[in-house]
Amino acid sequence: MAGKTLDALFYETLKDIYYAERKILKALPKMKRAAHSEQLKAAFDKHLHETEGHVERLQQVFEIIGKRAQGKTCDAIEGIVAEGEEIMEEFKGEPALDAGLLAAAQAVEHYEITRYGTLKRWAEVLGMKDAAKLLDATLQEESMTDSALTKIADQVVNSKALKAA
Amino acid sequence: MAGKTLDALFYETLKDIYYAERKILKALPKMKRAAHSEQLKAAFDKHLHETEGHVERLQQVFEIIGKRAQGKTCDAIEGIVAEGEEIMEEFKGEPALDAGLLAAAQAVEHYEITRYGTLKRWAEVLGMKDAAKLLDATLQEESMTDSALTKIADQVVNSKALKAA
Repeated sequence: MAGKTLDALFYETLKDIYYAERKILKALPKMKRAAHSEQLKAAFDKHLHETEGHVERLQQVFEIIGKRAQGKTCDAIEGIVAEGEEIMEEFKGEPALDAGLLAAAQAVEHYEITRYGTLKRWAEVLGMKDAAKLLDATLQEESMTDSALTKIADQVVNSKALKAA
Repeated sequence: MAGKTLDALFYETLKDIYYAERKILKALPKMKRAAHSEQLKAAFDKHLHETEGHVERLQQVFEIIGKRAQGKTCDAIEGIVAEGEEIMEEFKGEPALDAGLLAAAQAVEHYEITRYGTLKRWAEVLGMKDAAKLLDATLQEESMTDSALTKIADQVVNSKALKAA
């Protein structure tokens, strides 16, 4: 037995984030519809388009390692998205809805940041420079989305959430 | 109806992270036992002690808002921890086990970083300076743990995961 080395773990984690990105593709339009603030709607819309690009980049990474692109149920993103849906229900029509949606979106971003950060480092260790580049490009976009959401929280959403409807 | 404002959302999210921290308290000893590398074992052990402090800080924040400390099932941490357990099973005795465990721990850290980051900002907006301070203290520790894990990955764990057992 050769043992499962880093390449096996890389492949498993790639399937995990591929599943997660496609789950996010389905979740973002719902979050956009639910949001009140135009800035938040626009941020979700922008991220939806970026996410389509992230899925494509992952397909390129699957190609690099010579495997068919496929997802594997990612319990983490299931849980994170379920919490976002809970917020949408519990705070429907309430002043704090957007603040809750924005926090849910940042939880999604941080999950992606940790996974892409890990995958990028592993790609480097495995000597896959092109894969590392693709993963890093997405990592940078996820980080920028997270920062953009923080700005919207500070400038618009949190103060609105203070006032009773 | 006054409407659910930011204080209601703050309370809900506080219950979410309180549940998550206590789940992590139970998960860390298992991760420590599973890890091979002494550095990773030590990191999990250190974080276990810090996590006890995080639970206490959260209890203080509950006190500040005049509510009893209680958790609310956090689907996100359930999913993140379940993925870690899956790695422990799939990679038991395999060269890449520690790399997978370390990545799982970083996913936990990033969940905490996003939640504490959000709660800290909300505490500030709500004018609760002492609560914001407590939440920030934990946020800093979570970020330092994440960085410490990255160092262990780079210096020890990832290269070991390359070699067949």
